[in-house]
Amino acid sequence: MTAPLTLAIAGLGTVGAATGALVRNQHEMLELRAGRPVVLRAVSARNRGKPRGFHMDGVEWFDDPVRMARDAKRHVVTANKALLAHRGNQLARKAEGAGLVLAYEAAVAGGIPIIKALREGLAANNLTRVYGILNGTCNYILTTMRESGREFGDVLAEAQRLGYAEADPSFDVDGVDAAHKLSILAAVAFGVAIDFSALKVEGIRHVSAADIAYADQLGYRIKLLGIAHMTEAGLEQRVQPCMVPVGSPIAHVDGVFNAVVAEGSSVGMSFYQGRGAGPGPTASAVVADIVDIARGHRVATFNVPATALEKAHTAPSERHRGAYYIRLMVVDRPGVIADVAAALRDEQVSLESMLQRGRDPDTAVTVVLTTHETEEGALQRALLRISALDTVLEPPRVIRIIEAL
Amino acid sequence: MTAPLTLAIAGLGTVGAATGALVRNQHEMLELRAGRPVVLRAVSARNRGKPRGFHMDGVEWFDDPVRMARDAKRHVVTANKALLAHRGNQLARKAEGAGLVLAYEAAVAGGIPIIKALREGLAANNLTRVYGILNGTCNYILTTMRESGREFGDVLAEAQRLGYAEADPSFDVDGVDAAHKLSILAAVAFGVAIDFSALKVEGIRHVSAADIAYADQLGYRIKLLGIAHMTEAGLEQRVQPCMVPVGSPIAHVDGVFNAVVAEGSSVGMSFYQGRGAGPGPTASAVVADIVDIARGHRVATFNVPATALEKAHTAPSERHRGAYYIRLMVVDRPGVIADVAAALRDEQVSLESMLQRGRDPDTAVTVVLTTHETEEGALQRALLRISALDTVLEPPRVIRIIEAL
Repeated sequence: MTAPLTLAIAGLGTVGAATGALVRNQHEMLELRAGRPVVLRAVSARNRGKPRGFHMDGVEWFDDPVRMARDAKRHVVTANKALLAHRGNQLARKAEGAGLVLAYEAAVAGGIPIIKALREGLAANNLTRVYGILNGTCNYILTTMRESGREFGDVLAEAQRLGYAEADPSFDVDGVDAAHKLSILAAVAFGVAIDFSALKVEGIRHVSAADIAYADQLGYRIKLLGIAHMTEAGLEQRVQPCMVPVGSPIAHVDGVFNAVVAEGSSVGMSFYQGRGAGPGPTASAVVADIVDIARGHRVATFNVPATALEKAHTAPSERHRGAYYIRLMVVDRPGVIADVAAALRDEQVSLESMLQRGRDPDTAVTVVLTTHETEEGALQRALLRISALDTVLEPPRVIRIIEAL
Repeated sequence: MTAPLTLAIAGLGTVGAATGALVRNQHEMLELRAGRPVVLRAVSARNRGKPRGFHMDGVEWFDDPVRMARDAKRHVVTANKALLAHRGNQLARKAEGAGLVLAYEAAVAGGIPIIKALREGLAANNLTRVYGILNGTCNYILTTMRESGREFGDVLAEAQRLGYAEADPSFDVDGVDAAHKLSILAAVAFGVAIDFSALKVEGIRHVSAADIAYADQLGYRIKLLGIAHMTEAGLEQRVQPCMVPVGSPIAHVDGVFNAVVAEGSSVGMSFYQGRGAGPGPTASAVVADIVDIARGHRVATFNVPATALEKAHTAPSERHRGAYYIRLMVVDRPGVIADVAAALRDEQVSLESMLQRGRDPDTAVTVVLTTHETEEGALQRALLRISALDTVLEPPRVIRIIEAL
């Protein structure tokens, strides 16, 4: 195990360049920790002239990354979550079949060694639920909305001007990026095949300043969560805005930070927070995977051998049990609340609180309700009836309330 | 690697019994994850009759743990932090010399895979500072003091009645347990020999309800922190009550939870929270180490080979730079604050805030000061002068304010 581990880096964007710089500039530290030298032998990128923060002496340059990869059978370390979400199962089978490693710590919350924590640190646990804040852009927007009282569109535009959000923000704000990461976390946590198509995904475009303000009053924060929950009805995988109790650690994860909560049979609740993106945290995760490979560590890609991976049965969302926040625009008229309450009662949905700020007879006012734990199917049936009431002026706005320790 | 890994458990107290139960009751899950069967072959304990939560069929019983251990050369997994704090260096050399593993994830915050995170997940980082809440009993007491406004002695007595604190609480409340854990974390984080004698240790007996209330007013929480900080002046290792900003994640770690913050060159700040004690989290950590061994993972005990471990130079505490909280009991008389301020100014200690609640001429009142960043040596000299003032009635109470993200 003292022969050098040689590396080739395909692509020298911010992550590739930061990885190359780390490997070259910290080679003594890495050799001491890995027990053998870690040597950068080849790179591939379009532009040879651009400075990358490290010396290229002795590093072979390939214009064609495919030619570079053809060089030999190689372990692969990637930060590409979309690739894994869509092709992870096949890639894992291929890698494991060839006795090679497919490592991807950097694909999910680079600043948090969460893949390692789930697959190794919590190896003695049957995990029941894993959830987290997996997209820094959304968390930045929601944090800013709360702090400033401004609406989504306004804050998004500012984030775009500041470079915190992309010109085309849909990949982030519609929850797709978080969904890619959640599908990977779910596979590792429950030892099942990645099943991206089974995810329900909702972004943050419809979160209003009003919802955030009501959440505050009720003792919650609104966070875009990716939640994977193994229930008796099957596996739930959802990305959606949720209310979390202000006393829970995840409620205090603000700005561009990511966080993950894992709930296990032995360990109880464990919580992880760090930077989700950026060249430093991402390269840190890539190089941690490289050190693992250099040390000779081998773990099944998704926690059980790829040949044994099966897709989990998907829990029907109407079977989900939980508490809910409901915001209604109603005509301020005697009997409206009684009609709404009757519709909920008829479906056995039990109210926990009702809030109507201000009074303004015969005009539109906001009514906010929270329910006790109920089945989502029952709630949906009640909401259909409520929406049909003459006195209810807009489709009800519903947000899940998450039990979080 | 499909031959079974056989185990012997020395001692069947709560942790040993929980470990045995996990290994026997979850053997299918562990075999799938470890890639080979994990088999309990022998145990040693005093009382054969006691129920332990798992079947002993096929398990050999030893009355003498030393005889059991003599059986063969064995990897060792331990939760014994005192053993490591005092004998860790020799044990690591001995184990590594024999090609064996000495694993101890359970010795520090069992519910947090922090040894793995530092040694593997953050392997690409030069760590600069690692700190945390490492003793659940102290954190429970401080949390209850804050919530109830009661004094230390009162809350300790209640914790003892409830079984949250030992009849002889000094091991916990005087910081010794946290210090054992910190000495281990420091070795792993900085790749240095454990040096327990280099730690400065102060417990929570002198934290008053008044300090906790002033901390609240100033935007801080008081936590017993273990801090290992690699500075230009050397390695600082301290266990002491500290004020942390209320906006930092560690400020919200309440009750019996533990938490660790690691600050690294690439990753920035990463934060870990979980249960610190109890049979479940501790057995979870022990079995995670067992799975690592079964998988054939090998990492240098304290992050670099034991033969290369050297003690770090200890930073003199008078060189520590930071902000401070100072509480004085003074006679309420014109000129007192001026005298105090002059003593601080003469040592170049810059005041950030001053707080005097109430006025009561010629009787004792409390004055609370906070400083900007200063050198501890300068502050100590100023405090000597302040203590000598006629108008200062008690020794100043000083608490470090920690910069925490």
